[in-house]
Amino acid sequence: MCVPGCREAVERNLSRRAFLGAACAAAPAVVSSCAVTRGAESAPAEAHEPPRFPAFTRVVDLTHTYSSRFPHFNGKPSRVDLQTVLSTERGDGWNMTLWTLDEHAGTHVDAPYHRNAKGVTVEKIPARDLVLRLCVLDIREPARRDRDYRATVEDLKAWESRHGRLPPRACVALWSGWDAKVPTPEFFGIDDKGVRHFPGFHAETVELLLKERDVVALAADTASFDHGPTTDFPAHTLWLGADRWALENAANLGEVPPRGATIVCGAPRIEGATGGPSRVFALV
Amino acid sequence: MCVPGCREAVERNLSRRAFLGAACAAAPAVVSSCAVTRGAESAPAEAHEPPRFPAFTRVVDLTHTYSSRFPHFNGKPSRVDLQTVLSTERGDGWNMTLWTLDEHAGTHVDAPYHRNAKGVTVEKIPARDLVLRLCVLDIREPARRDRDYRATVEDLKAWESRHGRLPPRACVALWSGWDAKVPTPEFFGIDDKGVRHFPGFHAETVELLLKERDVVALAADTASFDHGPTTDFPAHTLWLGADRWALENAANLGEVPPRGATIVCGAPRIEGATGGPSRVFALV
Repeated sequence: MCVPGCREAVERNLSRRAFLGAACAAAPAVVSSCAVTRGAESAPAEAHEPPRFPAFTRVVDLTHTYSSRFPHFNGKPSRVDLQTVLSTERGDGWNMTLWTLDEHAGTHVDAPYHRNAKGVTVEKIPARDLVLRLCVLDIREPARRDRDYRATVEDLKAWESRHGRLPPRACVALWSGWDAKVPTPEFFGIDDKGVRHFPGFHAETVELLLKERDVVALAADTASFDHGPTTDFPAHTLWLGADRWALENAANLGEVPPRGATIVCGAPRIEGATGGPSRVFALV
Repeated sequence: MCVPGCREAVERNLSRRAFLGAACAAAPAVVSSCAVTRGAESAPAEAHEPPRFPAFTRVVDLTHTYSSRFPHFNGKPSRVDLQTVLSTERGDGWNMTLWTLDEHAGTHVDAPYHRNAKGVTVEKIPARDLVLRLCVLDIREPARRDRDYRATVEDLKAWESRHGRLPPRACVALWSGWDAKVPTPEFFGIDDKGVRHFPGFHAETVELLLKERDVVALAADTASFDHGPTTDFPAHTLWLGADRWALENAANLGEVPPRGATIVCGAPRIEGATGGPSRVFALV
């Protein structure tokens, strides 16, 4: 059995360092007493503890269909070319294509390397860090009043006062309602001066989540987890700079409870990629 | 509350038809009594029933890393070109690429349309059909004796005599041990005449699974769920012909129990694709 406090210590420890696949050098005695003997990728953090992820009955698809009709961040249509290799229509007996597609469009993951030259590429994000406790912050109301709204520390604290402190191994997702705007110009809200307008995370909120909570990933139903008008992208710089991943263009967060669901992010395991289109589910 | 037998009836009904997104026309009274009022994609089949998927503590990555070193079915290296769009090294502040890659290589899904001109493309496979009860058939021993081995009806019945009848909403996976051969020529086992040699499913087993069990997906740790020497691919023709999906080149099935895990298949949601590289987990 683990000593009191061990589980929390190991979770904090792993959450900071499992991302880089580091061995548990800092607290070997504590870790070995909890039977963490294999790599972080598939090993349970606490073999003797109760299950950490709950049973579920419902699967919510957090993924938009990705096609050239999905708007790219650069303001153009996304590039998704499927070049025919085999075709039943021409008598090959099979259908098969060669893909050429934009890495950061549709519902997609930002790997740390997207913004952080020393960060990991997407295939190195361990499986364990892609299955997390999903916490959904509803910012629809302030985002309706101000489309450049950034989720504040106060928003987070209001969520915690209703739903309890963020659980360990969390993914914090912003539900702004922007997923419903995807096919329209309002999704990016580009103005006369070429400035984008949509909500995101405030840098102070990101800092608090990095320093004072055990959060592995951020998610947003907008095109970026920084808000539209930014020019220096502080949320990306802070979050990916700390070797954490994020999800953008999430769909259907409104079908998920604020707390209690599990997010499973099918990030591509493509060597050297900086992120990429992902199939993402919430298990409720 | 559902009437007795309703849950099973709805499950059978949905499992056959949810794939095509069909409305529940055949048994509307039964379905509405179970509160299936929304699309199959995110609605619970039985809102008042106990959870269908168990709690879990461990995440096993069933995905190989996909790179040009991963052998393609055509005997050449897989094509995975990541063309630089933005680069921190050259001062852009970001890393981003444009992908060109083979659709059916690495750990990947075959959508029905891959073999079946009337079958659905990959983005139309509902989320609900990508989260299933994982049943692992260990065929390592017969596959060691005969690398062209095909899993038989007797293998399936032996599994059931040990672990119980296949549960509803199952994914049946062949664990041949072939995932360990990936980087070597033995993975395809191509002989002097150009014939491939690796294990797969026997067509009779596929027929039984289609007709007498409630199986949504097949999986294999080989390059194809038909065995290597086939020229007519009967397992593909039957299975994809029945509008079901399959997973090929699965990894790490040996880390999953024969029964009790949940498979979550992050199939790409790319419009018109015939399948594609997927991130796949087992929740144990």
